[in-house]
Amino acid sequence: MTTVVKEMLETYPADLGDVDREALARCIEECVACAQACTACADACLSEENPAELSKCIRTNMDCADVCTATASVLSRHTGYDAHLTRAVVQACLTACRTCAEECERHAETHEHCRHCAESCRRCADACEALLLRLG
Amino acid sequence: MTTVVKEMLETYPADLGDVDREALARCIEECVACAQACTACADACLSEENPAELSKCIRTNMDCADVCTATASVLSRHTGYDAHLTRAVVQACLTACRTCAEECERHAETHEHCRHCAESCRRCADACEALLLRLG
Amino acid sequence: MTTVVKEMLETYPADLGDVDREALARCIEECVACAQACTACADACLSEENPAELSKCIRTNMDCADVCTATASVLSRHTGYDAHLTRAVVQACLTACRTCAEECERHAETHEHCRHCAESCRRCADACEALLLRLG
Amino acid sequence: MTTVVKEMLETYPADLGDVDREALARCIEECVACAQACTACADACLSEENPAELSKCIRTNMDCADVCTATASVLSRHTGYDAHLTRAVVQACLTACRTCAEECERHAETHEHCRHCAESCRRCADACEALLLRLG
Repeated sequence: MTTVVKEMLETYPADLGDVDREALARCIEECVACAQACTACADACLSEENPAELSKCIRTNMDCADVCTATASVLSRHTGYDAHLTRAVVQACLTACRTCAEECERHAETHEHCRHCAESCRRCADACEALLLRLG
Repeated sequence: MTTVVKEMLETYPADLGDVDREALARCIEECVACAQACTACADACLSEENPAELSKCIRTNMDCADVCTATASVLSRHTGYDAHLTRAVVQACLTACRTCAEECERHAETHEHCRHCAESCRRCADACEALLLRLG
Repeated sequence: MTTVVKEMLETYPADLGDVDREALARCIEECVACAQACTACADACLSEENPAELSKCIRTNMDCADVCTATASVLSRHTGYDAHLTRAVVQACLTACRTCAEECERHAETHEHCRHCAESCRRCADACEALLLRLG
Repeated sequence: MTTVVKEMLETYPADLGDVDREALARCIEECVACAQACTACADACLSEENPAELSKCIRTNMDCADVCTATASVLSRHTGYDAHLTRAVVQACLTACRTCAEECERHAETHEHCRHCAESCRRCADACEALLLRLG
């Protein structure tokens, strides 16, 4: 997949501050990928034979998708950076991704889409955690 | 404006738990209204004579809109409720709304749209705070 | 519910063109309300005894919520207005709202949340149709 | 970037119909990448010396980001597929991407972020067009 996350960071015309660009780019990419995985996993769960068993998984997937999408957008902006706001959003994203990873992992042996989605959530949670440690 | 926030809460077919329905409905309504106000305020700032002076305001408006939209969606779901996830999201929304209210208030005397937007952000921040005190 | 849709329109600092402000404000308000109703209806369907019967309804609700949210944002911006883009987005929203109204109406007698949601979708479809007739 | 778009498509538990999976996967990936590029480009434009000159570009970027995000979500769902709704959404996305590509191309020589963003919009428009030809 051709993303331009790094190209956009490199061509930002003002000062990016002392943010760790690698950690920032990785977190944006994982948020974007995780949002898509969660949206697809909610839909895949819905088409399983017994979606009632997966209702909590579907709900958590939808929450995680919404939070990851918002977080990717916030992290893609650098103008008028506010560390306090960014930190709160990435913290919420970390919580959403961990919660969704745990829920999907409960179904990972039965449903391959939950396994892929849980892995995407774990990668995103790791990227959020790494970014939180490096935020100014 | 005819919203069905309360009708949807009242017709939810399962147990809502011991959530304060008034506080929940109010927070959803304020998040939805605040997201719209912030999107419109970012655009209004962009059409002012000197948008460069308002670049931080525009950016914060966009962040606040994204976080409020995600929060309204999370709060509109009750299936498989997870207090920890909800709390993290509402906390991020409270931070975004306060940050955006402060920024818009700096321009409220010069730009009426910033005044209206700041008021909407304050109402949403209050609703988030009230809900956080009542979450199970 | 206190929305500031009209206040934001009235305080937009540049020329709004010859758009019908009543039709525009109503369409924004209905999009915002419909997105929330659809998100809540998808979740309510998910908590019914047999969500498998409602899988198409849940899916259509989620699509309609996403399209209404995007449409509300596009309509809340006036800077650099492009009639062609606006028209395509409102047309997609009209299609999404009609499709979702039809699907929810199939369950309106059994599930009150589907009845409320269908009404919200119909109001939004009407507002989109009225706006399309008045777009420059 | 590790996306799981294809893995999620391959593990969808029900019938995907006779959709062209390659075209579908590509369109989802381009929508997701384009939404991020447009959000970052709007912010980069905002930090240029004279954002007033770029106000139409910023606005179009924001519209395109919103429409691409909604389209990626709609295309990531397969349950209860409705060709009419999907077609309307992808058509709106095609219009948004072309409009944004044209606008960004006007600034591509002066602003590298606009060049990268225009390329992302063109790739997404191409993917939308290819998918529209293959939709059932």
